[in-house]
Formats: sequence, structure tokens, C-alpha cells
Amino acid sequence: MEKLKKYVSVKDEDRFYHQGAVELLVFNFLLILTILTIWLFKNHRFRFLHETGGAMLYGLVMGLIIRYATKTSDVESGTVYECEKLKSGPSTLLINITNQVYEYQYKREISHHNVNGHQGNAMLQKMTFDPSIFFNILLPPIIFHAGYSLKKRHFFRNLGSILTYAFLGTAISCIVIGLIMYGFVKAIVHIGQLKEWEFHFTDCLFFGSLMSATDPVTVLAIFHELHVDTDLYTLLFGESVLNDAVAIVLTHSISIYSPKENPNTFDAAAFFQSVGNFLGIFAGSFAMGSSYAVVTALISFMHLTKFTKLCEFPMLETGLFFLLSWSAFLSAEAAGLTGIVAVLFCGVTQAHYTYNNLSPDSKMRTKQLFEFMNFLAENVIFCYMGLALFTFQNHIFNLLFIFGAFVAVFVARACNIYPLSFLLNLGRKQKIPWNFQHMMMFSGLRGAIAFALAIQDTESQPKQMMFTTALLIVFFTVWVFGGGTTPMLTWLQIRVGVDPDEDLKAEAASQSASNLDKNTTKAESAWLFRIWYVFDHKYLKPILTHTGPPLTTTLPNWCNPVARLLTSPSAYIDQLKEDDTDYIINNDELTENYESSAHTPVPAQDRTGSTQVTGKEDINEGDLGLGRYKLQVEHTTGQPQMSSMA
Amino acid sequence: MEKLKKYVSVKDEDRFYHQGAVELLVFNFLLILTILTIWLFKNHRFRFLHETGGAMLYGLVMGLIIRYATKTSDVESGTVYECEKLKSGPSTLLINITNQVYEYQYKREISHHNVNGHQGNAMLQKMTFDPSIFFNILLPPIIFHAGYSLKKRHFFRNLGSILTYAFLGTAISCIVIGLIMYGFVKAIVHIGQLKEWEFHFTDCLFFGSLMSATDPVTVLAIFHELHVDTDLYTLLFGESVLNDAVAIVLTHSISIYSPKENPNTFDAAAFFQSVGNFLGIFAGSFAMGSSYAVVTALISFMHLTKFTKLCEFPMLETGLFFLLSWSAFLSAEAAGLTGIVAVLFCGVTQAHYTYNNLSPDSKMRTKQLFEFMNFLAENVIFCYMGLALFTFQNHIFNLLFIFGAFVAVFVARACNIYPLSFLLNLGRKQKIPWNFQHMMMFSGLRGAIAFALAIQDTESQPKQMMFTTALLIVFFTVWVFGGGTTPMLTWLQIRVGVDPDEDLKAEAASQSASNLDKNTTKAESAWLFRIWYVFDHKYLKPILTHTGPPLTTTLPNWCNPVARLLTSPSAYIDQLKEDDTDYIINNDELTENYESSAHTPVPAQDRTGSTQVTGKEDINEGDLGLGRYKLQVEHTTGQPQMSSMA
Repeated sequence: MEKLKKYVSVKDEDRFYHQGAVELLVFNFLLILTILTIWLFKNHRFRFLHETGGAMLYGLVMGLIIRYATKTSDVESGTVYECEKLKSGPSTLLINITNQVYEYQYKREISHHNVNGHQGNAMLQKMTFDPSIFFNILLPPIIFHAGYSLKKRHFFRNLGSILTYAFLGTAISCIVIGLIMYGFVKAIVHIGQLKEWEFHFTDCLFFGSLMSATDPVTVLAIFHELHVDTDLYTLLFGESVLNDAVAIVLTHSISIYSPKENPNTFDAAAFFQSVGNFLGIFAGSFAMGSSYAVVTALISFMHLTKFTKLCEFPMLETGLFFLLSWSAFLSAEAAGLTGIVAVLFCGVTQAHYTYNNLSPDSKMRTKQLFEFMNFLAENVIFCYMGLALFTFQNHIFNLLFIFGAFVAVFVARACNIYPLSFLLNLGRKQKIPWNFQHMMMFSGLRGAIAFALAIQDTESQPKQMMFTTALLIVFFTVWVFGGGTTPMLTWLQIRVGVDPDEDLKAEAASQSASNLDKNTTKAESAWLFRIWYVFDHKYLKPILTHTGPPLTTTLPNWCNPVARLLTSPSAYIDQLKEDDTDYIINNDELTENYESSAHTPVPAQDRTGSTQVTGKEDINEGDLGLGRYKLQVEHTTGQPQMSSMA
Repeated sequence: MEKLKKYVSVKDEDRFYHQGAVELLVFNFLLILTILTIWLFKNHRFRFLHETGGAMLYGLVMGLIIRYATKTSDVESGTVYECEKLKSGPSTLLINITNQVYEYQYKREISHHNVNGHQGNAMLQKMTFDPSIFFNILLPPIIFHAGYSLKKRHFFRNLGSILTYAFLGTAISCIVIGLIMYGFVKAIVHIGQLKEWEFHFTDCLFFGSLMSATDPVTVLAIFHELHVDTDLYTLLFGESVLNDAVAIVLTHSISIYSPKENPNTFDAAAFFQSVGNFLGIFAGSFAMGSSYAVVTALISFMHLTKFTKLCEFPMLETGLFFLLSWSAFLSAEAAGLTGIVAVLFCGVTQAHYTYNNLSPDSKMRTKQLFEFMNFLAENVIFCYMGLALFTFQNHIFNLLFIFGAFVAVFVARACNIYPLSFLLNLGRKQKIPWNFQHMMMFSGLRGAIAFALAIQDTESQPKQMMFTTALLIVFFTVWVFGGGTTPMLTWLQIRVGVDPDEDLKAEAASQSASNLDKNTTKAESAWLFRIWYVFDHKYLKPILTHTGPPLTTTLPNWCNPVARLLTSPSAYIDQLKEDDTDYIINNDELTENYESSAHTPVPAQDRTGSTQVTGKEDINEGDLGLGRYKLQVEHTTGQPQMSSMA
């Protein structure tokens, strides 16, 4: 008899095991289908449905099939067992069932009203990811890639505006959505579809903060493809990247805001605690992420006398880069900070310092690795969103709430873009024109982050209502606004097919004519940023990378022994060609432009192939040192010498 | 009061969450340490401890720290709860604890005698991976990479010998270990340390099969570094790759062998069922793996008139390649076959067909991606092995069993290598000399696969004894034999520093002198293999890749319309330079040799950097078509023309 039981239990395990394989196979199949579709689209220059929209559509169809073509199989689920001996849920539970001990692992807490949802079929349950997978596995590569592929030159030039949109804009958006939703919730309570104590103002703010995370991946991909004006691109890309970080921390801060008495009244102490939380978590995550990147930069920079440099071993270099970046995420999580934010700033810092030290092979390896991970993760999330509409079992469709949310999202986007652009234009030399503002308004798509924030907690009924609504907003914005990008560009008469080369030539001309450019660039940046930039250029870059002036020239004389020790030998060689014009203008930008002008036909197609797919910008593969060299040669001789590039 | 409870449960979740981050951080830390150590070793040309040995050592130290520096924290664990209502363990369990429903997920079945082990501290439990992670996440990339980086030319030349060692050798090894262990088990029972009914002969065979999986990663890495004789390298590498597959399926077949009556008697029906199982699973997995690879080859080969080829989009190509290869694994698992075996043959087939169709960019991307995954997975496994010695809580150290296992493993290796080499030498033109045989005997290291097979099931006491013993054998062989490789090579006077170029020149000379070589090559391969090779060259290669003769020349005339449709346009161009000498000699080998002779200094160092790390061979990056072209040019003109290679 014992033999028999053993056999049954092995069978049981097999069942769980194979279910996992089938689930993953479904996702693989969806992704393969998506890739083949992208291929098809690329051939027909089809711009009305982006790959992410396509992934969502396939997910939707697959969800429909799973929902209605599979049947209930697990009879045990849905039954609640009583256990009087326990006081709280332990992490592992050993249960004696007919003389055999089974180990069970804690998964989550379930509200009583959701227990019925668990009577559904096993396949639906299996297809439902653990929400923490989004934050721990799928989002980090996407966010890191965004930070790593930030186009630094234009980003730093527009930093002030980007920070304004990201911080102030997200706060405005959150509050506006919160207020409008509170009005609608009152109305819903009035007509009796919701009880008053179920939905507080903080819940509305929570919804506001999660809906404030924009994700214009579709729009950016089309911008990239059509070569839309670089400043518009940078504003939108920079905003969306930083805004994700702000929205995530904001959502977290609001979710732990708990006024002591009535949750509808304003509690100043709790409010300031939440603000403090926000600032603390944001600053802490920033510090954690960038310090890991600095460690990576230092290790990759090390030039001990008896040692071969790490860049001789691209595999080790890539491995170290990957592991340290991941550690930034994990450390932030372990310290109670936000891993996603840490990984974003880690990516930005890695691109700024470490990237310069990597061997050409590792530059390409890291770039391609994260590009690939980003591509897969993004498509998995969009497939899953499509799936979730049918496989998620606790949807609550409340028409008034959904209508209110649509209104709130658009009003909030308008209150974010137009007033802030007006304020920014007061200070900006290069104004943000009206058609740019309309385009930014139009590009307020919601995507992966809003979804991930909404699915984190779907236990209570208000949270389920929010999740359903967020999902519908994502669908609508991705399909309608994503699809309408190209017509909208035409209608707003936004410059497309901008040759970055021409932009540069104009700039180079103004640079060589006078040194005015330096001042304009400086005037556009905030004074705080300017101080940091000088510090970065004179001290941090020479310490952490092989670029920048030697420390012996930037540090006071009495520091010379230390300075000599810390300066890379290659810095002295570069020194001759060093000058101050490349303050803000990043070197790899220049390389890219010159290289594309030198042999456009071949790499242009190649780049289209690899970057349109991700919708993010490439880090150029050219060696930065070389890039500067080329520019300097041109500057000093007065005409381009392309011979060194063959 | 409800508020309070909610708060507590949120805290609880947080705790689980952060524990996961800490665990992963520990592994990241170990891997970073390992990478830094490898870097150090590379600088000092240190060959007595390979990176995998180092990873194991770090794991060991970390395990020691976790074991003795952390304290018991989880008071709830170790208590078994009764549940009379349930009949068997459902996949999810809903439990009502003080009016709050918690969801628990099925993890595994536990034997009664192991329940006490669960009273240990929470950190130890957290650091213990789910055994299925090895088979589902860590092993597939390692095995796929092995298949994908198989050096085809020498592999096919030695195929007969490799298959003999892998199939017959593994079977011999399994039976010999089983028999010897049965003797030792009898002795252990005799002195009363084990009860007779606990350990059957099938358990001994099970141990034999899992200990038969060799993993000479250390030895191969050193062989690669020292450029040891290519035939010896190929024999060892090919044996270890195929032998893993055989051992995995064999272990599975033995574990489901269940004689109806007394488990100690021989049951012919059950035995043949097991043999049938073995053959069925092996053949099924082979078919599954290679058919996915063929699908990939077909997609990447497609040249529809109106379509841009997939190879214009390296990202999509790489994505498709990755997803289809992974699907091969998942499909095999879902169908009840062995995913690892499927993924191995998928890798071999991908390298044979698909690789030829990929764009140069994708060739590098796929190679680097799998190389990277292999590197990480391998080091994680070896770190974990070190950890497991102290963190695994149910070790059973039985000295007699351990001693017996050491004896059995060495005797079995001898019974595998020497008799089979003798038999093979009867048929081989190029004999396997004595020093090669001794070296192969010496290289019988056990590693990742043996460990993964042993940890799969550690519930019963015999299984725990096996696991502990397997772990010790892995430690011993990796450290002692791995470290002794270099002295052993010197002692056995095995040719090192073999210049593959010279090998080739000798061959090329004999080729151009006469066409005899074709016959010798044929004589070395089995007739069955020869038929397959002609079929592959004439029909499969032209259908699936851009290489090979056009189908119009190989198919009968009446097939011409179909043939014309299926043949790649580039095949006609190649046809002029086509001849039969490259039957067995794989083209990328030639490219590699020629390229390295043309500009040795630069790539040599580069290659050392990237491949010594993995211990596996690279697929050469050169374009295969070009490789053939270069050779043909040389053949027809009679002297090398290197101008096309600049």
C-alpha cells in the first residue's frame, strides 16, 4: 500500500511540473508569434499597430481561448480549511494528510470575498503570475536598459525641463487624478454601487499615483524610426524614464500613509511622514544605485602595475557588470528601498562612467545583453496584459469609475504639460513650441509600470476596480494613441527625418566660430547642475574613467602624488587634444554623427534593425576617446580628416 | 483591530520578500568574488585551482558562515498540523487562521524522519534551492551551450568512438558502480548501520547511473588553454556531453523501474519496460530537440520574394533563436520527455544548420548570449555545491558507503575506458594511444549533472546517503583531479601546444596530393553515419541553409520545379567553388585556422580571454561561406590568395 501512495504522489508532482512547462510554453508561443508579426510589420512599414500593441492583442486572444476552452479541473480549490491551532500564517506549513506530511509554502492573504474566485479552473490560476515577478524579474531589465541607453548629451541639456516634468508633473498628475476620482467615487457611492467606507481619498490618490506612470514606448519607437526632432524625443524619453521612478516611490509612500484616526481627514504628521518617506526612499535608492555603478567603474578602471586590466577578459567584465548592477537592485530591496529606482540610476551612472572603461567587446556585449532582456521583458509584460483581461478572475467593471478615470487621466496630463511648459518657457532659451506641447500631451500613454503597480495588490474591491480600470486605460492608450502617432505628427507639422548630422554641423560651426555655445549651454542648465558638471568633469571622470583631463592638472599642487597614482596613463595622451568645448556635448554623440556621415548606407540599415525593435536609443559603439580625437583633429586643421576611420 | 492585523500581515510579506533579496545577494556576492578570483588567477597563470573549484570553495566558506553565524528564528516551523478532511495534497490550500484566509502553495512531500530537519533556522531553509531549479533553469543553458559549441569537424570524425563511450561506457559504469555498491550496502547492513529493506539493488543502480555523469569542465578548460591534442579533447568533450544525456535518461528509467513483487528479484517485464522507457525517452527527446532546431533553421532560411530576410533584424533573429530553443526544452518536459536531452540535440542541430543562416551579428549575439548564460549558471551550481555541504540539513555521512563509492567510481571508470578503447582500437585507423586512455581515465570528474540528479530526491535515508556521497565525490574529483591535470599531462607526455594550423596544413597537403583522404575519413566513420552524411550534404543542408550544392543538381530531374523553389540563390554562386573535399572537414574550422595564421597576435589573446573562462570551445565567428571560398581559391590557384581577407 505504501508503494501505491508513493506512486500517486510522484504523479502529483509530475502534474505540477508539467503545468509549469505548459504555461511557459504558452508565453513562448505568444512571443514567437509577436516576433514573427514584427517581422511582417517591418516589411510593410506598418505603423498603426506597434509590436507591444500586437503582443497585447495576441495575449487577449490567448486569454479568451484559455478562459473559454479549458474546463475546471481542480476540485479541491475553493475549499477553505479551518485551523484553530495557528495564530498567524507561518512561511512554511507542514500538514499531515492521511499519514503523509506535505510541505506548503505561504503565498498570500486572501479576502473572504475573493475565495469564490479560486473555484475557477486550474489553468487560469496557473497562468496568473505572482505580481512580485513584475517588480523582481521583468521590470528591472527594462528600467536598467532605459537608464543605460539614455542619450546623455540631449538629456543633460534638457535636464531642468525633464526634472520639472518628472517630479512636479507627476505630483500634479497624481493630485489631479486623485481629486477627480474622489468626485466620481462620491457619485458612485451616491448611486449606491459602492459603500462609503470602502473608498477613501487616499485610495483615490493611490490610483492617481499609479496612473501617473507614463510609458510611451510605442511613440518613442516611431519617433526613433522617423527621426523626429531630437529635443522632443529627449524630453519625452527623459520624462517617461524619471517619471516611472517618481510614480513608483510615490505609490509606495501613499500606500503607507496611514492617518491615525479617520482616514478621510487630513493628518499633518502622517502627511509629512509620507513626504519624508518619499524623499528618503528616493534619495536612498539613488545613492544605492549609483554607488554600485561607481564600484563597477572603479573595478573596471583599476590599473595595478602587475595586473592585466579586466578589459582583457570581456566575459569577466560583462559578468561583473551584470552582477553588480543586479546587486544594486537586490541591495536596495533588502534595505527596504525601491530596487527599480536604484537600478535606473545605476544604469545612468554605468553609462556615464563604467561604459567608458569597458573594452569594445564588452561595450557591445553589455549593450546587446540588456537590449535583448529589455525586448523579451517588454513583450512578456504586454502579452500578459492582454492575457490578464480574461484570465484575471476578480475584475470589477464599474462604468462610472472607468469613465471618470479616462477623464481624470486626460485632464491630469493637460494640467501637467501645458502649465509646466509655460513656466519652463519663461526660463528656457530654446522654447518648447506649441506643437511639441500638444505632442507631449498626446504621448501620455500608460503601460508596464502602471500595470505592475496596479496588479501588486488586488485583494480589496477598490483595488480590483482600480486594476480593471488601469488595464483598460493601458489598452486604450496603447492602441489608439500609439496607433495615432504618425497621423498626429503630420497634423501637428512636427519636423521628421531630422538628420542629426545637420544639427551637429550647425553646432560645430557655431562652436568653431566662437565659444559662445559654451555659455548658452551653461545658461540652459541650472547653476547647481553646472557646479556638479564641472566637478564631474574635473574630478570624478578622471578618477573613474580613462577620459577627462589628468588629475594632476585639475587638483591643487599638493595633491600631486595622489593625483599621479589615480590618473590613467591614457589621460595624459588625451590631454593634448583636450579642450573645454565638450562640456555638455557628449563625445559618443559626435562619434555617431561622424560615423554615420562617413558610411551611411551600411550601418543605417543595421541600426534600424536592432533599435526600432526596442524603441530605445542605442549607445554608440564607437570608442569615445577616438570620437573626441576625430573632432579635435577637425577643429585644429579646419577640415575633416576621415582617413583615421577606415 | 482589523487595521492591526493587516499591518502585521504586510510586515510578514515584507519579510519574505526581503529574505529573497538577501539570498540572491549572497549568490551575487559569491559570483562576484569568483569572477575577481578568476581575474587574479588569469594574471598569475594559476592552474592548480580552476574557477569552478574556487566557486565551490567560496560556497563552502559561505555555507560555514551561514550555518554557524545565523540563529534559529522561525518558531513555527517544525510543527506538523493535522488535517483529517483532506485525502491528498492539493496544489493550493486555503486555510482559515483566526478569521483570515491564507493561500498556501504545495511545495513537496516530506518523510516523517525529516520533519525534525525543518526545525533548523530560517536562513538555512531560504538558502536551499528548489531542486527543480537545477533542471529547469540552471542546467538547460549549460547543456545547450555544450551542444552549440561542439567542434563539429573533429566530433563527426570521432563520432563512433564518442557514441561508444557515451552509451556503452555509461551503461558499463552504471552497472559496475551498482554491483560494487550493492556489495558495500550488504556489508553496511551486516554491521547494522542500515536495515535491509531500506536499500535495494535498484537503489544501487540508481546511484550508479547518477554517478556515471562525468563533467570534466576543469580538465577541458586546461586542455583548451594548453592546446592539447585536438582528438583527445574532442573524445573527452564529446563523451562528457553525450554521457550527461545518457545518464539523465538512465537515472529516470531506473527510478521508474518497479518490479511487481520483491524489489530485490529480477522482473523481466519491468526490466524491458525500463529499457523501452530509456529508448523511447531518448529518441523522443532527440526528435523534439532537433525538430525545433529545424523549424528555426527553416524560418531563418526563408526567402520569400516580397520579404526582407529575417537576418536583417538581428534582434528578432536572436529572440526567435532563443525562444524556439527554449520551447524545445519546455515541449519535451510537457510531453513527459527529458528537456535537457532535447535541448542538447537542439543545440547541436542549431549549430549544424541554423547557425549557417544567421546574420554575422546574430551569430555573435547568440554565441555570446549562451556563453554568458553558461558561465553564470555553471558558477552558480558550483557555488551552490559548496554551500550545500553545510546548509543542507539532512546529510547522512556513512563512511563505509562513501569509501565504497570512491572505489566503485574509479573501478567503473577503468572498466569503461580501457576495455572500450581496446575494442575501438580494433576498428580505428588512428588508434587511441595508451597515454590518451590514461588521461581519459583520469578525467572522469563528476560535477553539475551528478549533483543535480542526486539532489532531485533527498527524501528517503538512502537518497540522503547518496546525495552526501555524491557531493563528496564531486568535491574530491574537482579539486584533486582538476588540480592535477597539468602535472598529469606532463607525466603522460601528452602533446601540448598543438598548432591546429599545422594539423590542417598536413591535411590540406594530403588532400591536394590525392583524394585518398576522403576514403580514410569515410573508413573511420560508420557506414550508417556515412549514408546520413551524404543525405545531409545533398538534401538537408541545401533545404535548411544557404550552404551546400543547389538542390537542382542533387535531386532527380523530375523534381526540378520543387528544387528550384527551395534552393537559395546563393547556392548557385557557391556551386562553382563546390567540391567534395569538405565532406567531413567543417568549413569554419578552416576559416579559423586560416584567419589565425593570417593575423595571429591580436585574436589569439582575445580568444583566450573569452573562452578560457567557459572551458568550452568557441564557434568561430568567421562567415562559413567565406571560409569555403577562401579554401577553394587556394585549391584552384595552387597558392594562397590572402588579399580577400584584409
